Amino acid sequence: DTNFDMNEHPHTRQNILTGEWVLVSPHRTKRPWQGKVESLPADNRPQHDPACYLCAGNERADGSRNPDYTTNFAFTNDYSALLPDTPVGEIAIDGLLKAESQSGICRVIAFSPRHDLTLAELDLNAIKGIIQLWAEEFKTLSENPSIKHIQIFENKGELMGCSNPHPHGQIWAQNSIPLEIHKETINQKKYFQVNGRSLLTDYLKVELKEQKRIVFENDSFVVLVPFWAVWPYETMIISKRHVRSILEFTDKEQKDLASALKNITVRYDNLFQVSFPYSAGMHQMPVNDGDHAEWHWHMHFYPPLLRSATIKKFMVGYEMLGNPQRDITPEAAAETLRNLSDIHYKSNNL
Amino acid sequence: DTNFDMNEHPHTRQNILTGEWVLVSPHRTKRPWQGKVESLPADNRPQHDPACYLCAGNERADGSRNPDYTTNFAFTNDYSALLPDTPVGEIAIDGLLKAESQSGICRVIAFSPRHDLTLAELDLNAIKGIIQLWAEEFKTLSENPSIKHIQIFENKGELMGCSNPHPHGQIWAQNSIPLEIHKETINQKKYFQVNGRSLLTDYLKVELKEQKRIVFENDSFVVLVPFWAVWPYETMIISKRHVRSILEFTDKEQKDLASALKNITVRYDNLFQVSFPYSAGMHQMPVNDGDHAEWHWHMHFYPPLLRSATIKKFMVGYEMLGNPQRDITPEAAAETLRNLSDIHYKSNNL
Ligand SMILES: O=P(O)(O)O[C@H]1O[C@H](CO)[C@@H](O)[C@H](O)[C@H]1O
Ligand SMILES: O=P(O)(O)O[C@H]1O[C@H](CO)[C@@H](O)[C@H](O)[C@H]1O
Repeated sequence: DTNFDMNEHPHTRQNILTGEWVLVSPHRTKRPWQGKVESLPADNRPQHDPACYLCAGNERADGSRNPDYTTNFAFTNDYSALLPDTPVGEIAIDGLLKAESQSGICRVIAFSPRHDLTLAELDLNAIKGIIQLWAEEFKTLSENPSIKHIQIFENKGELMGCSNPHPHGQIWAQNSIPLEIHKETINQKKYFQVNGRSLLTDYLKVELKEQKRIVFENDSFVVLVPFWAVWPYETMIISKRHVRSILEFTDKEQKDLASALKNITVRYDNLFQVSFPYSAGMHQMPVNDGDHAEWHWHMHFYPPLLRSATIKKFMVGYEMLGNPQRDITPEAAAETLRNLSDIHYKSNNL
Repeated sequence: DTNFDMNEHPHTRQNILTGEWVLVSPHRTKRPWQGKVESLPADNRPQHDPACYLCAGNERADGSRNPDYTTNFAFTNDYSALLPDTPVGEIAIDGLLKAESQSGICRVIAFSPRHDLTLAELDLNAIKGIIQLWAEEFKTLSENPSIKHIQIFENKGELMGCSNPHPHGQIWAQNSIPLEIHKETINQKKYFQVNGRSLLTDYLKVELKEQKRIVFENDSFVVLVPFWAVWPYETMIISKRHVRSILEFTDKEQKDLASALKNITVRYDNLFQVSFPYSAGMHQMPVNDGDHAEWHWHMHFYPPLLRSATIKKFMVGYEMLGNPQRDITPEAAAETLRNLSDIHYKSNNL
């Protein structure tokens, strides 16, 4: 046992939120790469693009016109994956083909009127404004009794399937509880029932003691590379206080969340000096589904890049058919992120 | 209930192998795409590339030289994610940070000496030869008592993270059972214990009755788009006979598997007239782990393309944080694949 070293030897680690394991192969980035090298998307967007359906004052797909908004702007997705008026129904053929109708609401949130500025490049006030808008949206959507879960997220960058370059996030709210939330609920509940404290409260204690996976910390939030990270530079923002949703944050916590968001997104951009692609989103308690005292608010960042601005980690054959796998240790990733400047590499040019 | 129509309305479907659900949004490909358009990899590879570490007679990373093989060729990966000599060990910090050492063997299989020919372009004899090699590898690896699972797979194409364009597959064998196999074992066992028949035996009956998701069928195998497919053109090959692994196939079944493999890969290439990227692999019984009478051999194909040769489906924000989601129905995908020719679009040029 004394010879087993997580910095050197292949091993698996457990994700305490999902109960699943990730395979870690610390030595593996040494292999040569004759595979795909991504082209970088253009990084010279105008401040306002007349052809963009998110910019202020422009026409949208449904024929309506965006207001001349000056901070941020939310609207219902013109191409929603979930629709409010789906007829209720179920199918079960021979007990083996099972389907259920699904209804919901999809929202789009333009982060600012600026077509060219990402979250990392907005000031703290603007980011706090977005947090307030997320909270308002969460509140309104949860007032609809058929909604059971609200997923707030952002796909940033072409590499993450973002279908419009104007910086924006999305919200998908629906009448059932999606898989990842289901798994995290089970494990948080189990822990809370036994210990009377939230799983992430105790996890944060261990991480703050160990320090080696911490990237940033302020009064209210910790940014860290989770022990069980799958994506090379995956991080989480965890609130120090055990709150179940964004609705419970104080004004001070909203400010501190803005600073945590700015901090990690700036570090990400600085890593390869490129607007860093990721999918990110909050995990919060289900709504209209009881108390859920076990739930502890957190946010996941899943960025695909591994070696450089143009070479990503592929979650493919073994990962899809077998098990998630990563090529560098979470500790090495955290150290790299921690050592980066928190001043945006472009800020001289702004 | 009578109004709910799976061809029109958003719904969820259950994967009976994993127990998980997929969100289906039939109407959703109508949305405009201003997102990433892939560049096509060059399709003019030479028959032999002196710089390729898989071509016959060439030098490899470890300094050894490939034999002048004429059919196919297997060797241990010079950059294995799993290594045979990992020291055994476990870590459990405060019950929350859990890790276990992991050992295994990674193999590479060059499908033929030809640097330019994919599985779809090889003749049936050559494909049967690969199936025999897979069986031999499976046998040899399973004779190592520390190996519990053997994942045979292929990442095809740059888009699927293939790190060398010479057509090849991989095998990752390891001392524990990966997540996807774990889930499929649970659900197959549950069904087998209650019904005395394998889950996929009964599933095949339903699919052959319904016909609408069938792409191809011969004496021994069915190729279909599973009812719960996640990727747009995802398919499965299922053996008609309930066998637990590739070792149980008769000579006739090996021939029929070659023809099923050729058939689906040719259809895939014909879909967008491009060498179609995918990750594919067999799921089989764990080894050195008891009888596993419940296990039924099958093979999954996970291809990323959605709209065209250059626009793929992104499994990103909502999918990573919430739940897998697809944009066309499995029935529509099956119909498209079924109506394609099974003669390769390039065969005039060969
Ligand atoms: O093993 P390769 O071809 O170097 O690498 C490819 O397949 C592996 C197994 O699915 C993945 O872990 C890698 O991300 C992918 O690029
Ligand atoms: O909603 P968008 O931006 O059109 O689309 C993007 O995000 C969605 C939600 O994660 C995904 O389903 C799509 O595959 C992706 O391209």
